[in-house]
Amino acid sequence: MLKPLGDRIVIEVVEQEETTKSGIVLPDSAKEKPQEGKVVAVGTGRLKDNGEKVALEVSEGDQVIYSKFAGTEVSYDGKDYLIIRENDVLAVVQ
Amino acid sequence: MLKPLGDRIVIEVVEQEETTKSGIVLPDSAKEKPQEGKVVAVGTGRLKDNGEKVALEVSEGDQVIYSKFAGTEVSYDGKDYLIIRENDVLAVVQ
Amino acid sequence: MLKPLGDRIVIEVVEQEETTKSGIVLPDSAKEKPQEGKVVAVGTGRLKDNGEKVALEVSEGDQVIYSKFAGTEVSYDGKDYLIIRENDVLAVVQ
Amino acid sequence: MLKPLGDRIVIEVVEQEETTKSGIVLPDSAKEKPQEGKVVAVGTGRLKDNGEKVALEVSEGDQVIYSKFAGTEVSYDGKDYLIIRENDVLAVVQ
Amino acid sequence: MLKPLGDRIVIEVVEQEETTKSGIVLPDSAKEKPQEGKVVAVGTGRLKDNGEKVALEVSEGDQVIYSKFAGTEVSYDGKDYLIIRENDVLAVVQ
Amino acid sequence: MLKPLGDRIVIEVVEQEETTKSGIVLPDSAKEKPQEGKVVAVGTGRLKDNGEKVALEVSEGDQVIYSKFAGTEVSYDGKDYLIIRENDVLAVVQ
Amino acid sequence: MLKPLGDRIVIEVVEQEETTKSGIVLPDSAKEKPQEGKVVAVGTGRLKDNGEKVALEVSEGDQVIYSKFAGTEVSYDGKDYLIIRENDVLAVVQ
Repeated sequence: MLKPLGDRIVIEVVEQEETTKSGIVLPDSAKEKPQEGKVVAVGTGRLKDNGEKVALEVSEGDQVIYSKFAGTEVSYDGKDYLIIRENDVLAVVQ
Repeated sequence: MLKPLGDRIVIEVVEQEETTKSGIVLPDSAKEKPQEGKVVAVGTGRLKDNGEKVALEVSEGDQVIYSKFAGTEVSYDGKDYLIIRENDVLAVVQ
Repeated sequence: MLKPLGDRIVIEVVEQEETTKSGIVLPDSAKEKPQEGKVVAVGTGRLKDNGEKVALEVSEGDQVIYSKFAGTEVSYDGKDYLIIRENDVLAVVQ
Repeated sequence: MLKPLGDRIVIEVVEQEETTKSGIVLPDSAKEKPQEGKVVAVGTGRLKDNGEKVALEVSEGDQVIYSKFAGTEVSYDGKDYLIIRENDVLAVVQ
Repeated sequence: MLKPLGDRIVIEVVEQEETTKSGIVLPDSAKEKPQEGKVVAVGTGRLKDNGEKVALEVSEGDQVIYSKFAGTEVSYDGKDYLIIRENDVLAVVQ
Repeated sequence: MLKPLGDRIVIEVVEQEETTKSGIVLPDSAKEKPQEGKVVAVGTGRLKDNGEKVALEVSEGDQVIYSKFAGTEVSYDGKDYLIIRENDVLAVVQ
Repeated sequence: MLKPLGDRIVIEVVEQEETTKSGIVLPDSAKEKPQEGKVVAVGTGRLKDNGEKVALEVSEGDQVIYSKFAGTEVSYDGKDYLIIRENDVLAVVQ
């Protein structure tokens, strides 16, 4: 099992079709595309200045939307995961 | 439903006509153009150093003006939203 | 009405003649030119680390000098405004 | 009158002759040239994290040496001033 | 023996086959590849602002995944180690 | 007299011969060359977050070694000085 | 004698043979090579926000490994030293 450190979480990525409607890159668009995934493990929390930990806002099993370029891909036990910081999670899908 | 994390909010963008009056780009203008939208969901608040949360200043239903290049576009349930941090909200229209 | 957030203020810009005396750009001058305006709305204050707000130093009606390249231009109700952070206000004209 | 905000001060610049002795630019010299001026107004002080103000170290009337590239030039009432942060003041001439 | 300082840890790197399946570099992939290793020594902890130390989350003997480009390679007693900060450890393999 | 502000000190530079032994610039050397000088005036101290001052570690008369590229050269009363921050002092020669 | 300031230490560098085995620079290696040295003097400690000093973790006589590109070379009394911050010390060799 992968146990993320601090404010990191492990995500099982949900594959998305990457076809854009027009196929044209709009250079003046500064928006980044998000991606969806399922949280499979959460760290022990963000370390405060006084040495205590703040528990994360997301939990195991949460369906989350996160910034596409965040995190590190990890291959473990034949499956692909993504380890990102909770701060890169934009929203939970409920 | 999209539940934003921390100090993030979900905005339903109000479409604006993008015709500039003169059609000439003024290169010495460093001003960025803002956009308008309606807040449809707010996060649990900004995390303080001591682990507490500060409630956001904007509320669901607020009409807000925000920086054009802020945030991440999210497509959810057939509608387009924008997830931005409250700090990128310039003003509430009252 | 525009209600700015946090430490932001809304300014009604005072138009200035942009004729320079010599018409020559001095490339070794790193000084930026300021502009003048009238404060028409102030935010609820700067957020402190403990979650409290510090009231702004400028008030509605103040005539202020601010950095030319600061802020975001906003068109509202047929008039042009500028939303800047109080930190970009250099001085109040008394 | 110009009333600077926060940790800013208003300076009346003392003109200096800009003739260099050799007329040769030494490219490996990373030193910046300072300038002299007289403080004509001081702000209410630097804002501390707890919301209190720390009074400035320089006072009205002080002759100060400051970094040449600091601050913003302001024309007011037919005279030229410079608004800089106290942090850009290197020393007081006594 | 190598005794790392502060929040640093000493890692014995686990060699990995570096053959990519397709052999093609995908230029739009911003993900960094992680590596695996075994912790052989941990520092005395992260120094807090008040001068106390926060003990590290990883322990000697832990199998960890860390960012490929983190740290400094050290040759000691005929063996190669890597000294990294605990913050560069992504997850512990359990 | 020059009275430096905050954590700044005024140094009378000790001239050094600038002949390198080989005359060859080694491009992979990232080391910066230090210089020596005598402290002739010290500021009132570094300002802490709570508004108090921490007295400087160096004193008037100290012979110090400092980073060559630090500070601002000041000409005063026919003599050349250097105003640097105490943080740019590497060591005191005893 | 050289008395380093704050969190700085003075190191007597241990010369190392600079022959690489293959003589080929691997451009995709982002690792920096460390060096070894002996601590001959330590500063009074790192200054905390409240004005107190935290004693350094390394002591006079320690054999340390440090980042190759850290610090400033100082020639004193006919011998060459390196002044670095304790933070650039990777590990103590015991």
